[in-house]
Amino acid sequence: MEKIKLSEGAGGEMMQKMISEIILSNLENKNVNGGIGLDELDDGATIPLGKSEIVVTTDSHTIDPIFFPGGDIGKLAVSGTVNDLAVMGARPLAIASALVISEGFPKKDLKRIIKSMNKTCKEVGISIITGDTKVIEKNKFDDIIITTTGIGIAKNGEIKPDSGLEVGDKIILSGTVGDHGMAIMAHREGFGFETNLKSDVAPVWDVVEAALNVGGVKAMKDPTRGGLANALNEMASKSGVGMLIYENKIPIKEEVVAASEMLGIDPYEVANEGKVIIGVESDLAEDVLEAVKKTKHGKDAEIIGEVTDDKHVILKTSVGGKRILETPVADPVPRVC
Amino acid sequence: MEKIKLSEGAGGEMMQKMISEIILSNLENKNVNGGIGLDELDDGATIPLGKSEIVVTTDSHTIDPIFFPGGDIGKLAVSGTVNDLAVMGARPLAIASALVISEGFPKKDLKRIIKSMNKTCKEVGISIITGDTKVIEKNKFDDIIITTTGIGIAKNGEIKPDSGLEVGDKIILSGTVGDHGMAIMAHREGFGFETNLKSDVAPVWDVVEAALNVGGVKAMKDPTRGGLANALNEMASKSGVGMLIYENKIPIKEEVVAASEMLGIDPYEVANEGKVIIGVESDLAEDVLEAVKKTKHGKDAEIIGEVTDDKHVILKTSVGGKRILETPVADPVPRVC
Repeated sequence: MEKIKLSEGAGGEMMQKMISEIILSNLENKNVNGGIGLDELDDGATIPLGKSEIVVTTDSHTIDPIFFPGGDIGKLAVSGTVNDLAVMGARPLAIASALVISEGFPKKDLKRIIKSMNKTCKEVGISIITGDTKVIEKNKFDDIIITTTGIGIAKNGEIKPDSGLEVGDKIILSGTVGDHGMAIMAHREGFGFETNLKSDVAPVWDVVEAALNVGGVKAMKDPTRGGLANALNEMASKSGVGMLIYENKIPIKEEVVAASEMLGIDPYEVANEGKVIIGVESDLAEDVLEAVKKTKHGKDAEIIGEVTDDKHVILKTSVGGKRILETPVADPVPRVC
Repeated sequence: MEKIKLSEGAGGEMMQKMISEIILSNLENKNVNGGIGLDELDDGATIPLGKSEIVVTTDSHTIDPIFFPGGDIGKLAVSGTVNDLAVMGARPLAIASALVISEGFPKKDLKRIIKSMNKTCKEVGISIITGDTKVIEKNKFDDIIITTTGIGIAKNGEIKPDSGLEVGDKIILSGTVGDHGMAIMAHREGFGFETNLKSDVAPVWDVVEAALNVGGVKAMKDPTRGGLANALNEMASKSGVGMLIYENKIPIKEEVVAASEMLGIDPYEVANEGKVIIGVESDLAEDVLEAVKKTKHGKDAEIIGEVTDDKHVILKTSVGGKRILETPVADPVPRVC
């Protein structure tokens, strides 16, 4: 009897295959009013309604540990949901939050998590409007799972699907890669170097709003599970294009490079939780970059490459060579979001 | 250090207290555009938008066992979400579905659950438009959690909040009580009498739509965790009214009465998953009842009582006595939805 593998929930190719074979193929009603639906596997779905598009996204957060350098599961849940709405081009409006808590979970930890959700909501101006709480037996599960569903809104025609890229567009990355995955991994393993590593978890609506205000944005994606490598490949593949990425333009912290070398983990394949990839038409790329760099979460942004008519994402390495940046089989760090 | 108890996730008074003390009091942004929000603890929230109200509801489903007489976790998740939208007075449009699956979970079981979700969606004409899949380690958890978030729509002013009841309104119950909770409990305990007990799990949009088409509907609620006793008390308390309920009018199956006596469990305190309580203005109550009785899921409907200016829900027993039907401390059957 075939069983679900851990790697089938870790972003990347294995997960896409399982979802396609077991989930997508057994569902028939997958969109509403011709909006973006389940088959598109975008960051969210859309419901066209009069002159508006309601945008919906959902994520269960099962991170281990629940408190980590730079954040906690509450900040992660709200940020992740805000970011999925934002990269669809939607203004985040509301969150529905469903908690599954283990019997015996400390009430002070729950309070700390809720306060963290509150703080992150206030930063973005989003509200938690409905919720659910379940408590299950200790021996079933020893932690907390937070499922946040986000509701956002955009004007008709202003949605930014992953598939919106065209040849010649520039690719902007809003900041350094690998911080979240590496911070979680280092903290979990208890190595000596974790003090300098901090998750980047944050809501990036400020970055997205700044970019949208300039204009020219074609497609956006937040590089979570499977990291930058997964996100760039998904955007390219859905748009039917390739990319040329200049490795020396990819912002990355020295300590992330060091940790990735020690752990043997590719920093382009691990999750980020406060970054956005923005595909922009060439003429406006410098203006968008400038606007993004003025935001709190976009200071380290760079134009890292451009869209090509190739069918691959090609990485031009610092020493001048070229290699294909492949879709990872699965995120090398499990339980990361 | 204070810890979360199993009973604090089981509907009823203990859960309400925990949620109020730890969750509501630590959140500041709890509604959008003046709609119904988290503080109302209604079946869903509303986002006023032009001439429409977007209705949002979320639930994590952690039932044990995941396949049970009359249904499974997939049918339960979709039905529960449809029902929460319906009792707000909203037409169900879309579902976001987040799965947390244990490593090693059989793929054929997952396929069976997805097919069941599909069938239930098709019955109502709702679509699963977005989702998420996480897989976590076997030793953390041995099952599947499905969090479904529903998006529905109503016209401005047509929302039916729990607090809408007025003195003189009639209370309609759409069918027999206690089926779901008792079926789960009997199946779980493996008693000999479980063969005749079947969960009532079903989407009740047909019942609600029929009632709304007649008119006069003031408030609705689906009596899930904490059962009929909890739902009637919540409606009464939020509306600032009392109720007089005629026990001999409450539809209940003989085998549910038998099981409840053997198990020592009050059938009014256990979850139903295919029922709706409808508060209707007196003049239209018979017409609504007639319309409801013509629907697939409302055949056994009855007018079970009326709204009073008392502050309690009073049960007039079959032998003529009266007792207060209290809010249960917690649902006597854990892991029921």
